[in-house]
Amino acid sequence: MKKYLLASAIPFLLAGSLYAQNKDSVMFRRIANEILLHGKCYSWLDYLSNKIGGRLTGSPQAAAAVEYTYQLMETLKPDTVFKQECMVPHWVRGAKETAKILTTQSGEYAVNICALGRSVATPVGGVTANIIEVDSLSQLKRLGKAGIEGKIVFFNGPFDETLVNTFAAYGKAVVQRFAGPSLAAKYGAVGTVVRSMTNTLDDYPHTGAMQYNDSFPKVPCCAISTIGAELLSKKIKVDPQTRFYFDMSCQTLPDEKSYNVVAELRGTEHPDEYITIGGHLDSWDLAQGSQDDGAGIVQTLEVLRAFKALGIKPKRTIRFVMFMNEENGERGALKYAELAKLHHENHIAAIESDAGGYSPRGFGLGGPANEKNKIVGWSNLFLPYGIYDFLGGEGGTDIEPLQQQGTFMIGLYPDSQRYFDIHHTAADTFDKVNKRELELGAAGVAMLTYMLSEYGLN
Amino acid sequence: MKKYLLASAIPFLLAGSLYAQNKDSVMFRRIANEILLHGKCYSWLDYLSNKIGGRLTGSPQAAAAVEYTYQLMETLKPDTVFKQECMVPHWVRGAKETAKILTTQSGEYAVNICALGRSVATPVGGVTANIIEVDSLSQLKRLGKAGIEGKIVFFNGPFDETLVNTFAAYGKAVVQRFAGPSLAAKYGAVGTVVRSMTNTLDDYPHTGAMQYNDSFPKVPCCAISTIGAELLSKKIKVDPQTRFYFDMSCQTLPDEKSYNVVAELRGTEHPDEYITIGGHLDSWDLAQGSQDDGAGIVQTLEVLRAFKALGIKPKRTIRFVMFMNEENGERGALKYAELAKLHHENHIAAIESDAGGYSPRGFGLGGPANEKNKIVGWSNLFLPYGIYDFLGGEGGTDIEPLQQQGTFMIGLYPDSQRYFDIHHTAADTFDKVNKRELELGAAGVAMLTYMLSEYGLN
Repeated sequence: MKKYLLASAIPFLLAGSLYAQNKDSVMFRRIANEILLHGKCYSWLDYLSNKIGGRLTGSPQAAAAVEYTYQLMETLKPDTVFKQECMVPHWVRGAKETAKILTTQSGEYAVNICALGRSVATPVGGVTANIIEVDSLSQLKRLGKAGIEGKIVFFNGPFDETLVNTFAAYGKAVVQRFAGPSLAAKYGAVGTVVRSMTNTLDDYPHTGAMQYNDSFPKVPCCAISTIGAELLSKKIKVDPQTRFYFDMSCQTLPDEKSYNVVAELRGTEHPDEYITIGGHLDSWDLAQGSQDDGAGIVQTLEVLRAFKALGIKPKRTIRFVMFMNEENGERGALKYAELAKLHHENHIAAIESDAGGYSPRGFGLGGPANEKNKIVGWSNLFLPYGIYDFLGGEGGTDIEPLQQQGTFMIGLYPDSQRYFDIHHTAADTFDKVNKRELELGAAGVAMLTYMLSEYGLN
Repeated sequence: MKKYLLASAIPFLLAGSLYAQNKDSVMFRRIANEILLHGKCYSWLDYLSNKIGGRLTGSPQAAAAVEYTYQLMETLKPDTVFKQECMVPHWVRGAKETAKILTTQSGEYAVNICALGRSVATPVGGVTANIIEVDSLSQLKRLGKAGIEGKIVFFNGPFDETLVNTFAAYGKAVVQRFAGPSLAAKYGAVGTVVRSMTNTLDDYPHTGAMQYNDSFPKVPCCAISTIGAELLSKKIKVDPQTRFYFDMSCQTLPDEKSYNVVAELRGTEHPDEYITIGGHLDSWDLAQGSQDDGAGIVQTLEVLRAFKALGIKPKRTIRFVMFMNEENGERGALKYAELAKLHHENHIAAIESDAGGYSPRGFGLGGPANEKNKIVGWSNLFLPYGIYDFLGGEGGTDIEPLQQQGTFMIGLYPDSQRYFDIHHTAADTFDKVNKRELELGAAGVAMLTYMLSEYGLN
């Protein structure tokens, strides 16, 4: 490409509220310019990624991230900065994570695995057993105890590549990881192996939470890279007597004290109407958690910085929240909602950024139709910034507990194509983040936060 | 992110042509599924990038790319495959490309440069002279001969980061690279250094074409990395007597014979109406040219593959064109238009993919309002695939010469945030390409090609 395209996407101004739209479009431009020219989120993410690193709940890194963001918030001079204490799970991976395919004819093959979050360890020396492949929970159920007992179950249902939004593919496949292990244990499985949740074919295992059902034995469970999954599937097809061995030393320690970190800008006209924006401060331990969800954290801080730099005094109160423990417990999210209820706070809307710092495309909206329509009525203002989709999606795990209190749920919806290439793997590192994409996402959240604080949702 | 968003963007069907839209939306789904499940473009791009590499016009690699795509087209079994011979420029970089900032007080600093395409070499031993910084051609004009003569001119106008579409920022800045050297020579400059055309701050110099004006002396010209540019600017500010040295051995050899490579699917109902889709086969020499424009090449081939796999028999004739020499001469583009005119072909529309294989967002449309409106009328069909923007942009360099014959110009418009990070540098390599993004772009071109072939533009 030698030449160039012209700047694009002139906003269509709706008839009617022309004056307000002009005033707001000027503010949108100011917000975008402030963030694109003076944004700090990229360098903050560099620090969070490269100086602090993976921040699994209960780890020293998670504690360091609490301190870092608390102090950073103070330098940004909101009206208040505070922490919300909560007890969090403390699961640790341990040093041992090895696995092999044991064929009867062609020898052994080492494969890349990682323990799933919350998994118990294998017995010392590992688990070795025959392995059976299924592509879904329903296939597992059909096999029942007769087909499963004493075996390791291999969930190999792949992503549905025809789904344009990769989160939809994740949503369909992830039930294997989350609920598969206990369902397998119900039928007598001695362990489970889950195909990594990704669109790509590579050798990274993707961790993530699973949930034990207390009615059944807790069996060890791991994720296998997609390259490993393909090999394993091939070996099982050739030789149904193929066995699998894996050895993991992960464990759950006693709960630890941790915190949500919160900054507040007090509303000038309706201080009792709250708008929460946030991301989650914890991440998986395998890498730096730069896209999941360092991006959402620094974008939230960037919105605060931009509001202060532009002298915006919001009419409604804005809370900037670094939620703790999204990945394996949601304790911070539950605590935040619990305290909101206890203090009789009226949280009108909440925005979560937890889908990566990629170019924004829209917002998922969850709530009553009249409130949804009000936001959709603003959508043309967002078009010049590449944000056009207000039809799909939902909020996010951290804001979900607020929904019971009538809070309108909003999720930032960035381009989804690259997210699951690195999600929950050792490859989720700072170099995967593009500065301008990250900043445009922050700008989108800032713009919507501005509109919500200016006009509310009634 | 642990949970997931729902699939998004239900297409709004316009009242009226409901039946046709349903039929077309079914075809769109078939095209997307074919490409997302069975696409070959990513592996073809791997070959073009890693087995052939940078394909500057006149190089053995460019010749290899002609042969590779010609043979590949034959395996895809279109109605015809042919080459269009054209003579192309043969500029070579040469082994020597070094530069230093020479301060009067703090010593010397080596900086990363590369020759601009078409530049003459420096005299043997290089050029050393005082250097003067300007941020625009107009500032250069104001300085005039008195300020410029005998000096090296340093064009340091940066990208305008407030422009959301980075191609708009490129468009504003690139005039320094393209026209700056000769304008500087007009005022007696002995060489020019241009800040690399990018949003990022890194140490890659970005090459690209410049154009000598024959009225003025040909002075050697190079691009400097943005890190080098920042350092140079700082040194000049501290010490206006700072000198610059650069030594380059690039040269222009006699023109070479080369080719456009063309496949054709003959139209079943209106064979004399032509739709051209394409990208450019040549690339700069510094890297693999994976995004610029290997992506456009393999997407074009993917459209052909998908049409054949789905058994689509287009009503109008479709030409799949690998254009030669976009980067430094446009000889292939000119030849294509010349032959179209000679053969009295009626080219109703042309689509170029030359903005990278990133997630598609829209199409730039250039032509009469009634034809534009017809395409915009199809836009809701594209929404489920993330393609929403039909308002901005234009076609592309390779199809531009057809415009004089009344051809409607269309450019695929992908997300632009990452393109200029690597554009025309050693970093434009295969690992920068995401398989699904590339495939979605191909699907978008296939869908629009289908609509044009089905309904024409009248």
